[in-house]
Amino acid sequence: MCGVFGIYGHPEAAKLAYLGLHALQHRGQESAGIVTSDNQQLVTHRGMGHVIDVFPQGQLDRLAGIHAIGHVRYSTAGGSGLRNAQPIAVNYSRGSVAVAHNGNLTNAEPLREDLEEKGSIFQSSADTEVIVHLIAKSAQKDIVDRLADALARVRGAYSLLCLTERTLIAARDPMGIRPLCLGRLPDGDSYVVSSEPSSFELIGAEFVRDVAPGEMVVIDERGLRSAMPFAAEPRRTCIFEYVYFARPDATLDGINVYEARKNLGRALAKEHAVDADVVIPVPDSGVPATIGYAEESKIPFEMGLVRSHYVGRTFIEPEQSIRHFGVKLKLSPIADILKGKRVVVVDDSIVRGTTSRKIVKMVRDAGAKEVHMRISSPPTQWPCYYGIDTPTRAELIGSSHSIPEINQYITSDTLGYLSLAGLKEAVISARVAPRGRTHLPVHTDDDARGPGETSADGAEASAARPLDHGSFCHACWSGEYPIRFTPAPKKLQLRLLHL
Amino acid sequence: MCGVFGIYGHPEAAKLAYLGLHALQHRGQESAGIVTSDNQQLVTHRGMGHVIDVFPQGQLDRLAGIHAIGHVRYSTAGGSGLRNAQPIAVNYSRGSVAVAHNGNLTNAEPLREDLEEKGSIFQSSADTEVIVHLIAKSAQKDIVDRLADALARVRGAYSLLCLTERTLIAARDPMGIRPLCLGRLPDGDSYVVSSEPSSFELIGAEFVRDVAPGEMVVIDERGLRSAMPFAAEPRRTCIFEYVYFARPDATLDGINVYEARKNLGRALAKEHAVDADVVIPVPDSGVPATIGYAEESKIPFEMGLVRSHYVGRTFIEPEQSIRHFGVKLKLSPIADILKGKRVVVVDDSIVRGTTSRKIVKMVRDAGAKEVHMRISSPPTQWPCYYGIDTPTRAELIGSSHSIPEINQYITSDTLGYLSLAGLKEAVISARVAPRGRTHLPVHTDDDARGPGETSADGAEASAARPLDHGSFCHACWSGEYPIRFTPAPKKLQLRLLHL
Amino acid sequence: MCGVFGIYGHPEAAKLAYLGLHALQHRGQESAGIVTSDNQQLVTHRGMGHVIDVFPQGQLDRLAGIHAIGHVRYSTAGGSGLRNAQPIAVNYSRGSVAVAHNGNLTNAEPLREDLEEKGSIFQSSADTEVIVHLIAKSAQKDIVDRLADALARVRGAYSLLCLTERTLIAARDPMGIRPLCLGRLPDGDSYVVSSEPSSFELIGAEFVRDVAPGEMVVIDERGLRSAMPFAAEPRRTCIFEYVYFARPDATLDGINVYEARKNLGRALAKEHAVDADVVIPVPDSGVPATIGYAEESKIPFEMGLVRSHYVGRTFIEPEQSIRHFGVKLKLSPIADILKGKRVVVVDDSIVRGTTSRKIVKMVRDAGAKEVHMRISSPPTQWPCYYGIDTPTRAELIGSSHSIPEINQYITSDTLGYLSLAGLKEAVISARVAPRGRTHLPVHTDDDARGPGETSADGAEASAARPLDHGSFCHACWSGEYPIRFTPAPKKLQLRLLHL
Amino acid sequence: MCGVFGIYGHPEAAKLAYLGLHALQHRGQESAGIVTSDNQQLVTHRGMGHVIDVFPQGQLDRLAGIHAIGHVRYSTAGGSGLRNAQPIAVNYSRGSVAVAHNGNLTNAEPLREDLEEKGSIFQSSADTEVIVHLIAKSAQKDIVDRLADALARVRGAYSLLCLTERTLIAARDPMGIRPLCLGRLPDGDSYVVSSEPSSFELIGAEFVRDVAPGEMVVIDERGLRSAMPFAAEPRRTCIFEYVYFARPDATLDGINVYEARKNLGRALAKEHAVDADVVIPVPDSGVPATIGYAEESKIPFEMGLVRSHYVGRTFIEPEQSIRHFGVKLKLSPIADILKGKRVVVVDDSIVRGTTSRKIVKMVRDAGAKEVHMRISSPPTQWPCYYGIDTPTRAELIGSSHSIPEINQYITSDTLGYLSLAGLKEAVISARVAPRGRTHLPVHTDDDARGPGETSADGAEASAARPLDHGSFCHACWSGEYPIRFTPAPKKLQLRLLHL
Repeated sequence: MCGVFGIYGHPEAAKLAYLGLHALQHRGQESAGIVTSDNQQLVTHRGMGHVIDVFPQGQLDRLAGIHAIGHVRYSTAGGSGLRNAQPIAVNYSRGSVAVAHNGNLTNAEPLREDLEEKGSIFQSSADTEVIVHLIAKSAQKDIVDRLADALARVRGAYSLLCLTERTLIAARDPMGIRPLCLGRLPDGDSYVVSSEPSSFELIGAEFVRDVAPGEMVVIDERGLRSAMPFAAEPRRTCIFEYVYFARPDATLDGINVYEARKNLGRALAKEHAVDADVVIPVPDSGVPATIGYAEESKIPFEMGLVRSHYVGRTFIEPEQSIRHFGVKLKLSPIADILKGKRVVVVDDSIVRGTTSRKIVKMVRDAGAKEVHMRISSPPTQWPCYYGIDTPTRAELIGSSHSIPEINQYITSDTLGYLSLAGLKEAVISARVAPRGRTHLPVHTDDDARGPGETSADGAEASAARPLDHGSFCHACWSGEYPIRFTPAPKKLQLRLLHL
Repeated sequence: MCGVFGIYGHPEAAKLAYLGLHALQHRGQESAGIVTSDNQQLVTHRGMGHVIDVFPQGQLDRLAGIHAIGHVRYSTAGGSGLRNAQPIAVNYSRGSVAVAHNGNLTNAEPLREDLEEKGSIFQSSADTEVIVHLIAKSAQKDIVDRLADALARVRGAYSLLCLTERTLIAARDPMGIRPLCLGRLPDGDSYVVSSEPSSFELIGAEFVRDVAPGEMVVIDERGLRSAMPFAAEPRRTCIFEYVYFARPDATLDGINVYEARKNLGRALAKEHAVDADVVIPVPDSGVPATIGYAEESKIPFEMGLVRSHYVGRTFIEPEQSIRHFGVKLKLSPIADILKGKRVVVVDDSIVRGTTSRKIVKMVRDAGAKEVHMRISSPPTQWPCYYGIDTPTRAELIGSSHSIPEINQYITSDTLGYLSLAGLKEAVISARVAPRGRTHLPVHTDDDARGPGETSADGAEASAARPLDHGSFCHACWSGEYPIRFTPAPKKLQLRLLHL
Repeated sequence: MCGVFGIYGHPEAAKLAYLGLHALQHRGQESAGIVTSDNQQLVTHRGMGHVIDVFPQGQLDRLAGIHAIGHVRYSTAGGSGLRNAQPIAVNYSRGSVAVAHNGNLTNAEPLREDLEEKGSIFQSSADTEVIVHLIAKSAQKDIVDRLADALARVRGAYSLLCLTERTLIAARDPMGIRPLCLGRLPDGDSYVVSSEPSSFELIGAEFVRDVAPGEMVVIDERGLRSAMPFAAEPRRTCIFEYVYFARPDATLDGINVYEARKNLGRALAKEHAVDADVVIPVPDSGVPATIGYAEESKIPFEMGLVRSHYVGRTFIEPEQSIRHFGVKLKLSPIADILKGKRVVVVDDSIVRGTTSRKIVKMVRDAGAKEVHMRISSPPTQWPCYYGIDTPTRAELIGSSHSIPEINQYITSDTLGYLSLAGLKEAVISARVAPRGRTHLPVHTDDDARGPGETSADGAEASAARPLDHGSFCHACWSGEYPIRFTPAPKKLQLRLLHL
Repeated sequence: MCGVFGIYGHPEAAKLAYLGLHALQHRGQESAGIVTSDNQQLVTHRGMGHVIDVFPQGQLDRLAGIHAIGHVRYSTAGGSGLRNAQPIAVNYSRGSVAVAHNGNLTNAEPLREDLEEKGSIFQSSADTEVIVHLIAKSAQKDIVDRLADALARVRGAYSLLCLTERTLIAARDPMGIRPLCLGRLPDGDSYVVSSEPSSFELIGAEFVRDVAPGEMVVIDERGLRSAMPFAAEPRRTCIFEYVYFARPDATLDGINVYEARKNLGRALAKEHAVDADVVIPVPDSGVPATIGYAEESKIPFEMGLVRSHYVGRTFIEPEQSIRHFGVKLKLSPIADILKGKRVVVVDDSIVRGTTSRKIVKMVRDAGAKEVHMRISSPPTQWPCYYGIDTPTRAELIGSSHSIPEINQYITSDTLGYLSLAGLKEAVISARVAPRGRTHLPVHTDDDARGPGETSADGAEASAARPLDHGSFCHACWSGEYPIRFTPAPKKLQLRLLHL
């Protein structure tokens, strides 16, 4: 999982990118990077860690320029390290270009193999490097056409920002898998693009609209214009963003995340009612669903588990094993609330089952008479190939165990998962009235419009089409992958390791 | 504000102290320190920052020993820096001694002046250094008597740990202002002492009982024994610990913090009812009071403000002023919940008023029709001299402005503070049945008992006496200071500054 | 200027590379890097700073493998930063490959332009990246042939190491501009390659021989073999290595550096005799020449200037200008030696003249009656395009000023430069009897030998041919460039900047 | 070993102290510290490491003020750590005071014991803390009298700086064991004090004179004045400063260090002549003695061993033992100079013998036919109690082995130590004509002069008295300790350890 942020035409571009990335920090804490341009030269800095650590004042000051794109990256098992940090910035025949990318390409490996066969070298394992190669190799002249050319060859999920000396382009894959939003600073002509609109709020920008699936938004000295250069595909927005990943204050593709989560809780209460004294969330992500569950079930809501704000990554464990150590570092039960009670615990998902098992024991050790686990999504059974870092099938307890078996393993009294139908309905019910400016003030230079390029208004219309039951990717639960993933050939599996 | 943790007789003393301090991290994030003993020599390490940063693996490994005391310290305006970090550890005539201290002495300055007049030198501005000097200067032979001697001279608030080569002593001031709890590891004879029992939970220790006001608990090779060496004083436990400071999962002096906060919310709903559509907390501390408010008022509870987990101390601001920047970094509104609604916002206190003002604007900007501020305590009007870092009277908006004026300043539609009577009643109503072991297994060596020294059972009885309306310090609201504070004489005001 | 080190077939490959690079630290202090292989996978780590800082124990331990190449890099004005650190390691169609390179290509820019035109991307400004691209694009199958193919297209100076999963290749440009030596660890079959033999001494390896100009030495599981795949060129070994750059304990291409420098001093004394009381070096590089000058002239040698060992790069200067501040930080005069004396100061070169001017003043301020500057090389007039970081012509005082003018500028009483003829003669006179093993034990698989590939013995013969007056590059003094340098086209001049 | 630097009355006091300490870096690399005063408040910063690392720009800027004292500290086996860093700065009854101290007290332990018995606490193991306690406990009113009072009670070696808000005092023990010099900035009234005059050179100050044994120099708003408050003692200046410790560019107490070292070499050549082909130094400290040896013996001088400038403290060793690894990291032989030669190696001392043994082997392995070791001082047999960090007697090879046995151990062909008589004579012969200003412009307020206080002229006269054979401490060779050292009583031996 990752987050991207871009800004065009602002004297404090790097600083606003830094703030925008900070608001996206929940989408990736492993590394962060910013590339700026002053219309003449690209300057880049990337580092491991949180945005605030990667960019001390001095470094921000050196990122001169009025345009910027930035990226935060999630820690994944393989492929960690500075080399895989983004944006990737390179020199090529037409100057310099930088790309930041949220999502995962499904055909990166065959493309990489093909490029290598033709003599390309790869310095990272990021599929973003594939896109940069394709841009550099395109026969087109203009960066807009080169990027369209490159993206026409890739398959999979991408919400992508591309910066050259004088042009910022935002592109979203035709299925609209990952979110991407367009905003504008109130006093002037600075456009901003972000994975989530929370970035806009922080820097005082206004939300304009979501970038449409398959849309390329080009921002340059002529203003903003839009194109739809790719063949249309069925919409397949990642529904897990609403369940877990996005910030609750976000509204993505017209659906309010907080409201969606409350609806999940309400639906869960309907599908899996239970006689209980109290309903508590696994904080922080489970809170809205628990509020919904409480409202629907009339069972009192309590914050029965407290989350520590001070958990670092490399905590030193005592040698003598403390029971449920890892969970205890993060969560503590409020015994006086749980003692003697029948407790419903609401969480968003169960991955390996080990954490849920520890939570159930923690709640029971605190004195709970009964522990009823309620999950606001179906059993996670399939890995995600579109940008969320899930373990292999073998590690997913939902792949190999029935719900009763999982219930037994995590030692809960009862266990209930929300159905896929219930999930979809709940999310769709969180649709909100269109926000943002109705009339996007764009310079639409009709002469400059290439094949398939439409005005921004067209894109806006497309973006405004509301999501329905059929609009989602839910492969992690259903196995119904909208795009087939091609794994790396054997020869590409043991690759250079950058420490 | 600070937190202390001690452990006696455990092969992983430093590591458990590290974990115990981690569970107290909310009581102080500026510096951390641990002193250990292997029965022969004290070893110490202190540093600026969070526990996890101050103690990398190598440093923990070098803290050899089976006893340990540790400290986390809050960032205060003056007196920052490594020099003021605790524990303070020194050599003196009888060997080495280390002291860690939560609270504030009210007569530290005259004592310091007196000590200086007699030729003492001071390397820090911490009042803990005064205590260490008094220990070293005591005419008594034994550390227990020396500490009692020293504490007999100081006035004010202290929950204090003292470690020598072979002895750990925990002491609490006669008014019992700051909390201090005693625990025990299940498998063996290791005793633990902590500002809050959350430390016990994390390391798998069981809660034994609160240390009684005026009690000294001595742990050495003879086991644990208790003494009450000081003249009795009326109990004056800080009631603000329940409102804001302590962790919600703690039960301190027989009162459950979470339940107390819910009660505050209920009482607030009764005292300041309002017709509204939604009630939201200022997270995280305001959540339980808001749940209580919602329960009592039947107004739906929502998490209308989201708190960021990634806010660092030295955030770089853009030069162009972003409205309400500081608050925006920490909090974001969920517009879809607030739009068009009459919103009750529950917070625990208003200090300068600037943050509340920003929050009200943020909620209103998100579309709220009405914003009703509710504070789960009375107006803060007086500085705390017993260990909580409050600004001067001049900066406290409650000192100089009436409630209607504050309401106007923070631009809320209505503003309601909980009354002091309501606050006391709410907190007392959160008394819980006594927890912990009834029979504390102590070695009570009657012959060794000095004057005023009682058996542990006596102390336990005292500790078990439940708090009532008269048991609290509430000077920050009432100005009724239980102990007068003596400020530094002019000549002690411009002191050495350690960078 | 840079240094390279390689080792094949040793269980502590990374550690020995680390030590080897340490012994080459004088050739580059800006960045350091090591790539290892365990026969299956390459692992790489690079960082800014000295070898000892870039590779803490943990990082060395993670560099698993039995083969390694490493690099130290000099700080240059442009093109600084981690991106330009070496070795460059990439994935390509045949697996992974890493290249470390000392020297400078003269046709890197046209090659880069050509590669970009064909769609290549460049992530650094190092010409090493050009070589890696050429390797990856070669139509040959085997890495040896691919590298030969790539090197056949480049012009300029290179002493280069190339590592794949199972093969280490050392190559030296046909003119033999930069040094490269072959060694062997005594107990076993581990071969080592290094810019200078000082690395061998430190790790206990024995010197075998210099790599011959135009030679490729291939080390793999079949053993060591040699090839001469390139068209022969006249030998043009950089003579400045003997004057200044190489360590005095090195013998490069059969010439002992220390002895060469002493000869320079002797020749200087003959060419520019002067009546004086004492001759002193500018330490440390000027010491041997000064000893030679003293021997020849019979003027007593003294260490009249002391060099500080503690000069860091980013020294904070006082705002009030201290006279000759920079030089004073590095050098201090011994007044009692200089007072009232006629002093000869011997240095190896004058670049901008500012430092010499400060030194003359410093010596005079210390009481010297006369100051006679003697330079153990001719006036530096031309930039080096083959790997030494010299300023532009405009900045070289020797380009624009006559010797009398320079003498006037640096305020010396007399100034004497060594003649080019004298320099050549002095260096050649330092030829030593061939060292190293006479019979190199190589596996010479005649069937495996490609076109142009010869046995190691042939290469040895070539390497053993002694240098003569015509064997050197002395372009920095004479302007006689053996290979023309092609500068970057205008469009490649403003490139991506990596902070 | 340590270095001290002080400056009074300069707007860039902290920066000049930083430079001054840099010039004294050879006297201590473990920690560094500076205390400044703006006439009202002392500000202090100390840290582990080199001056350049401890004081980044920001930290220097925060050290506001016009007076400063600073300290660099040598790494000693026990007692390392930030706690022992200097200056020590404290608050006491009269304000704040800071002390920086080079030397070692011989009665620190009984004084400490006495102070502890009277109730003092000690936060470090530095004897400087004893001095500060004595200052604070003095019955005198003025800081000058308090310091005199304190120093009257201590015995041993000290060259000490003391800073209060408005006064800088420099004091030197009555035997004048460690050096201390007075200087002045040319443009204005800023006085500077330093362990060695090299500091003056760097910042552009002029040398005024040495501080006299037993002298206190007081600098305040009234100007500079001098006092001799202590009972006179025979002069016992550390002669090892001339042999090894001081910078060769220094002139201390009228003796030029470089010239003294050359004289040592000449005397050594006379005492221990040998038929040889070349004489080489162990760099860098052995160079001047070797030049002297060469001059006297007519054997050619060569730099046969090269010293690396890049040796860090925590070098990672390979697991397979490399012969003479530690020495090889630091020194490399120039084989072509040594091969087949009879070599004289000149060093300043032999401590444990292990390093000399490695050097002899290194020279022999490089091809030397004979190796003759010559030491420019007598065998080191006794520990120093006056500030030089020597090992215990048991570890000193000179304590337990005869010279022939040492010769055998270090495997040299012959070994010759300089005699004590020869050493004294050599050092005395390096006396130079008095430098500095003859007429020190001091404000001599006769009324303000206390008992024993003389005018600066008197002190100057005393300082100018030239050293003779009887003026030195040479206890490390002769065991003739001028002051008896009182070790710590048993109960003070196991003390608090600060990590």
